[in-house]
Amino acid sequence: MLTLKRLDENDAQILIDGAAAKAREIGVPMCIAVTDEGGNLVAFRRMDGGKVTSITIAIDKSYTASAAKKATHEYGEISQPGAPAYGIASAIGGRLMVVGGGLPVAAGGEVVGGIGVSSGTPAQDREVAQAGLDAFLAQL
Amino acid sequence: MLTLKRLDENDAQILIDGAAAKAREIGVPMCIAVTDEGGNLVAFRRMDGGKVTSITIAIDKSYTASAAKKATHEYGEISQPGAPAYGIASAIGGRLMVVGGGLPVAAGGEVVGGIGVSSGTPAQDREVAQAGLDAFLAQL
Amino acid sequence: MLTLKRLDENDAQILIDGAAAKAREIGVPMCIAVTDEGGNLVAFRRMDGGKVTSITIAIDKSYTASAAKKATHEYGEISQPGAPAYGIASAIGGRLMVVGGGLPVAAGGEVVGGIGVSSGTPAQDREVAQAGLDAFLAQL
Amino acid sequence: MLTLKRLDENDAQILIDGAAAKAREIGVPMCIAVTDEGGNLVAFRRMDGGKVTSITIAIDKSYTASAAKKATHEYGEISQPGAPAYGIASAIGGRLMVVGGGLPVAAGGEVVGGIGVSSGTPAQDREVAQAGLDAFLAQL
Repeated sequence: MLTLKRLDENDAQILIDGAAAKAREIGVPMCIAVTDEGGNLVAFRRMDGGKVTSITIAIDKSYTASAAKKATHEYGEISQPGAPAYGIASAIGGRLMVVGGGLPVAAGGEVVGGIGVSSGTPAQDREVAQAGLDAFLAQL
Repeated sequence: MLTLKRLDENDAQILIDGAAAKAREIGVPMCIAVTDEGGNLVAFRRMDGGKVTSITIAIDKSYTASAAKKATHEYGEISQPGAPAYGIASAIGGRLMVVGGGLPVAAGGEVVGGIGVSSGTPAQDREVAQAGLDAFLAQL
Repeated sequence: MLTLKRLDENDAQILIDGAAAKAREIGVPMCIAVTDEGGNLVAFRRMDGGKVTSITIAIDKSYTASAAKKATHEYGEISQPGAPAYGIASAIGGRLMVVGGGLPVAAGGEVVGGIGVSSGTPAQDREVAQAGLDAFLAQL
Repeated sequence: MLTLKRLDENDAQILIDGAAAKAREIGVPMCIAVTDEGGNLVAFRRMDGGKVTSITIAIDKSYTASAAKKATHEYGEISQPGAPAYGIASAIGGRLMVVGGGLPVAAGGEVVGGIGVSSGTPAQDREVAQAGLDAFLAQL
C-alpha cells in the first residue's frame, strides 16, 4: 500500500486566488484550473473575459503538469521538431499540453497536484500560474 | 443583434458557496459546477471527498441545465422508456444528463447559466443545487 | 493537504492473480483491470480467450467502482427505468458502468482502488472480481 | 482463410517482466503495455511512481507498434516537418504515437504483438521496451 499527499479543496482556492490576483495585476482575465496528483480536477475559475477555448486548455495544462510531474513549457522544449519528444502534443486525445502555463505543485519533494492557466500569451499564462504556486508555497 | 444576460465570476462563487454550505449541512461532500448560458464552464469545486466520477457528471449536469434551459430531473421524467425523449441520455457523447442535480439559473425571466451537483443520491444532488440557486436568488 | 492510501503495484497483482484463479476454476477467460483510488489504471490482464470488447469494459468497471466508491451492480439497480439514477449509464462518455463486475477495493475503511472484470455473464464477472478482492483482503 | 500467430498471456508477462527489470535497473518506474497483433491490449503494468499520463501513452505506443508493424521512433523520423508522414502524430484521435518507446514484437518473421513503454525520456522508454523484447526473444 502506498501513502501519499494530495492538495485539498482549501489549497486549490489558495492557488487560484494567487493566480487570479496576478491576472488582475497584468490585466488579463484568465481560466485557472487546479488538479490533484492523479490529474483529476479539484477547482476551476473562469474570470470574466477568460476565453471559452481556454476552459479545456487550462484544465489540460493542469492535468499534464500534475499527472506527468513536469511543467508544460518543458514539454514545449523537448517536443520541437527534431527533439526527442516531437509529436507528443497530440497524445492522450490532445490532452497532453506542451504550451507554457501548466506547473506541477510540489510539497515536501512530492508532487501533490498541478495548476494550469490559459487565456493570455503562454508567457503570461506561465507568470500567472507561477504566482498561484508562489501563493501556495508562501503559506505552507 | 442580441443583448443577453450571463452570470459572472462572482455570481458563480455565490452559487457554489451556497451549494457547498448545504452539502456540509447534510454531510455529503460534493462536486459543484457552474456554467454560463452557453453551457461553458465558469467555476468548479470538488469538496474534499467528492467523487472523481462526479467531476464530469457535475459539469455535464450544469451544461445540460443551462444549455437546454431545463432541469436534469425533468429530462429524467421525459426520457423514460415509452416517453417522448426516450434515448436522449446518450446524446452529445453522453453529456446530456437526465439524472437530477442540474438546474438552470434564471434572472428576470431569462436563463443566465446553470448549476450541476454530483456525489450524493440524485435527491441530495438536487437539494444541494437548489440551495446554491436559492443563495443566488436571495442576493439579486 | 490530504494524506491518503492507494494500492500499489504488488497489491494490483494480488488482485489480478486472485481473480484469474477463479476465472480458470469456472472456465471463463476474463479481462481483469485494477485502478487506483483516483480511477487511473494500475494493472490489466487479458487472459487467453478474453473478449476484445471486454478490455475497455473491464477498465471502465474498475474506474467506476474506484472513482465512485460504489460497486457497478449497485449502479445497475439504481439506474433501472423509473429509479433515481436512470440514465447514468451513458455518463462520462459511457465510461460509467452499471453492469456487475466492478468492485471498490477498501482497506481500513478507505477506498484505495478498484477491480473490474469482464468477458463472462455479469454474475460471473462479479464472482471473479470478488475472488480478486478476497485474495487481497486475505493477505492484508 | 488466414492462420496467424499472436502472443499469449504468458508471453505478455515475460515482455513486461523483462521491461520492468530494466526499468528498476535504471531507476525509472515505468508504465508498460503489451498489445496483440491486432493492436488490442493484452497486459499492462504501472510500476509505483509511473506517470498517470503515461498510462495512455504506453498503451498507444504499443498499439501503434503492433498494429502498424513499425517502431514508434521510426515514425518519429518520417513525421518530421517536410518528411513524408508529417502530421501523422495526430491520426486516430492522437493514438498514433511517434515518440520512441513502442516496438513491434516479431516471431518467425511475423509480427505477433507489440510493447509500449512510457514515463522516462524517449531514450529510456526505448531501452526498457527493448529489454522486454530481448527477454521474450531469449526464451523463444
